[in-house]
Amino acid sequence: MSRTRIHNLTISLDGFGTGEGQSLETPFGHAGHRLHEWMIATRFGAPIVGREGGSAGVDNALAQQHEPGIGAEIMGANKFGPPGWQDDADWTGWWGPNPPFHTPTYVLTHRPRPPIEMEGGTTFFFLDTSPAEALAVAREGAAGQDVRIGGGPTVARDFIAAGLVDHIHVVQVPIVLGRGVRLWDGLEALEADYEVEAVSTPSGVTHLTFSRP
Amino acid sequence: MSRTRIHNLTISLDGFGTGEGQSLETPFGHAGHRLHEWMIATRFGAPIVGREGGSAGVDNALAQQHEPGIGAEIMGANKFGPPGWQDDADWTGWWGPNPPFHTPTYVLTHRPRPPIEMEGGTTFFFLDTSPAEALAVAREGAAGQDVRIGGGPTVARDFIAAGLVDHIHVVQVPIVLGRGVRLWDGLEALEADYEVEAVSTPSGVTHLTFSRP
Repeated sequence: MSRTRIHNLTISLDGFGTGEGQSLETPFGHAGHRLHEWMIATRFGAPIVGREGGSAGVDNALAQQHEPGIGAEIMGANKFGPPGWQDDADWTGWWGPNPPFHTPTYVLTHRPRPPIEMEGGTTFFFLDTSPAEALAVAREGAAGQDVRIGGGPTVARDFIAAGLVDHIHVVQVPIVLGRGVRLWDGLEALEADYEVEAVSTPSGVTHLTFSRP
Repeated sequence: MSRTRIHNLTISLDGFGTGEGQSLETPFGHAGHRLHEWMIATRFGAPIVGREGGSAGVDNALAQQHEPGIGAEIMGANKFGPPGWQDDADWTGWWGPNPPFHTPTYVLTHRPRPPIEMEGGTTFFFLDTSPAEALAVAREGAAGQDVRIGGGPTVARDFIAAGLVDHIHVVQVPIVLGRGVRLWDGLEALEADYEVEAVSTPSGVTHLTFSRP
């Protein structure tokens, strides 16, 4: 059965999944790259920034779960581009000609545009629908495989709050961001619907997994 | 040198150190006892609720750090009693005739009263001062030993924000409370001043320690 999954959703101790002041130069606002250093240090994450090598331990094992079995991704408008990308007819995302998705990828936006077929199997589709409707469309596109909710934190929260997510992997970095977009708001008693595990690793982060029994 | 320490400060994943709706019947509001189950399950915590036994592993080792070397405690008005205790001339705290402090204990309140000497070495003093002034008074009372900031979360946050705390032990319980009193507000970039460690334990909680180098 096709499941809906979230992976590598990284937050600060105070629960912010992105900082304040997102722009073309600062896609994560004042958080900079501090939320993602743990991932860039892994064998999975190093190629994202053009590096070789990387750690091959617990952080890497959990980060790699991002890929297997995924047939489609859904992401929010704020992940696809900086504020105002909808006004740029040539914007095709942050990731160059061969984005790292390699599946149908659904971008939620109130200003949809025609699909964009990229190299490497990624096609961006633009949807102006509810989480449940977007998931139904993405499930079709995933052809029996799982659907990943790719974030950012607002979209992750919306899908979780709607009860649509079967597996959530949150990574907590030991920094206090103070401002930005909170993950946990509106998710009171989330633990009641999931089996929860926590594991800290030598990099200093704590991985939390929420799995539906 | 006398240090200022916080121990066993327990929060939810979303950072709430107590729930909403504190009263005589519900000292932690809608959180109930869920924030403190991890501690009651330890050898250190079991006697607090009149139990014997308890675990003797990592949770217990960290919980026990609460005691050694402490010569005074500072607590907030909301820890000393339910809302309105200042109107009850006979209120002497939640803990019966022999409170578990066994040192001078300073209660911050805008309505101070004369000191109350309890059994077992605890004397409650009532102060209407700033965190820095309260700490100076408590340090005198501690006679060279350390001062513990006993909470609740508002008082812990005030002392941390004022740069007065040398060691902070936070315990994160994997529940989402949704509402209550937040610990992290106003503490942006806290990690810059401390060495931070995180460790998850089999009980499901994650211990975070912030130590000044």
